[in-house]
Amino acid sequence: MPQPRGILFDMDGVLYVGDQGVPGAVETLEWCRAQRIPFLFLTNTSSRPRSALVEKLAHLGITSREADILTPPVAARAWLEERLDGPVALFVPPATAGEFRGLPTVPREATTAAAVVAGDLGEGWDYATLNAAFRLLMAEPPATLIALGLTRYWQAPDGLRLDVGPYVKALEYASGREAVVLGKPAAPFFRAALEALGLPAESVIMLGDDIRSDVAAAQAVGIRGVMVRTGKFRSADLEGDIRPDAVLDSVAELPQWWEDAA
Amino acid sequence: MPQPRGILFDMDGVLYVGDQGVPGAVETLEWCRAQRIPFLFLTNTSSRPRSALVEKLAHLGITSREADILTPPVAARAWLEERLDGPVALFVPPATAGEFRGLPTVPREATTAAAVVAGDLGEGWDYATLNAAFRLLMAEPPATLIALGLTRYWQAPDGLRLDVGPYVKALEYASGREAVVLGKPAAPFFRAALEALGLPAESVIMLGDDIRSDVAAAQAVGIRGVMVRTGKFRSADLEGDIRPDAVLDSVAELPQWWEDAA
Repeated sequence: MPQPRGILFDMDGVLYVGDQGVPGAVETLEWCRAQRIPFLFLTNTSSRPRSALVEKLAHLGITSREADILTPPVAARAWLEERLDGPVALFVPPATAGEFRGLPTVPREATTAAAVVAGDLGEGWDYATLNAAFRLLMAEPPATLIALGLTRYWQAPDGLRLDVGPYVKALEYASGREAVVLGKPAAPFFRAALEALGLPAESVIMLGDDIRSDVAAAQAVGIRGVMVRTGKFRSADLEGDIRPDAVLDSVAELPQWWEDAA
Repeated sequence: MPQPRGILFDMDGVLYVGDQGVPGAVETLEWCRAQRIPFLFLTNTSSRPRSALVEKLAHLGITSREADILTPPVAARAWLEERLDGPVALFVPPATAGEFRGLPTVPREATTAAAVVAGDLGEGWDYATLNAAFRLLMAEPPATLIALGLTRYWQAPDGLRLDVGPYVKALEYASGREAVVLGKPAAPFFRAALEALGLPAESVIMLGDDIRSDVAAAQAVGIRGVMVRTGKFRSADLEGDIRPDAVLDSVAELPQWWEDAA
């Protein structure tokens, strides 16, 4: 394998767990910067803007810029700018819409659009709204369906709540068209990260705590998947079919592993 | 093959096309009655009660009773009565709810239910309603998901409109649970028809104009699939992998075919 040259970091479970920073995370990121190693934070969080994530990292002592963070909306925007020449219809909450500022858009009730961007609209997903997205997918020419991840649900204070994934599945089934999913574990999201790093897959490692969404998903596009024993890691994760390219006790061990791999 | 003893008739495209009766349909049904051959009309129509279908048939000169018609809600009710001992939560329009009259029910916001019945709620599928169905599927014990068919969409005067299928797919994906689908082409619907006829699959034929939803779907549960060249039939239907057990010009030919098969 070639010497790794760039790093993708999962955030939750790797840099922090809940509101607690993982010991050594600050030092590892300082080492990245000192060594001028290109890196990106790769997260499925799409309901909070990157500015909120920058702020959270700052509280943990990690200096970052919005440009260091790749979220589904940011990857979707890059995907759209590169490939489409028509306006998009946004089915995303207001906090997410800001990431698409400057792109040509059409109202949801338009008769055609180049793309439908589906995010975690929550209560906004009433029948008329989902039907409007569906009609755009069935229009001539049909819109491309862009999904900001496929998360199934999340735990709200009052109970479980549906996230974006079920609505994307509804639209895929209704239209017979497959979504381009920009979010882990889908390949287009990892490819967007490689484009942002400007590196080929074989020169990049992904550091994560999720054996499927981080490690196996990265490996599926040729990125080395490195597992950390923090966050949601369980020892049973290493007993299945997925073999991480390396297993580290935590992000703190990364500089040593990297130098050994040199 | 044993002599056929019972018949399942698709309605639309077999007995009528739009508002026009298929010539010979009246006589074939009179022949069924004279011969005392058990039969059922099998239709995916779930938004109109059976009384409306009985009326439509009467306009075409076909005498029928509601008990002759098996629709997804009727099959769902029979399925629930046979297998479940708890209350159900109905996510169906008012016209359909009548078919479940007498069954124990709970409100959609209940914390548990034995089953969630999902139908074509149309505008009723707002976020809170879909989320309520989802929570019942995730409750302890979880509700069984019963789908009144998997139709994708229908053509309304103002454009395409989502039907029940996309919402069932959303619930399946969100909960990780598979629906029991009572509607063509799903096997449980055909099994419900066999139960209603009181005959084994190998003694029954299904007469339909849809090579997949009628012919192949019936064959998948061991019922002979007989194709008619009316309704949505296209000659290309016979050029694929699916081989009907017989092909008739129309329902008018059924008595002759039946007597030849004797």
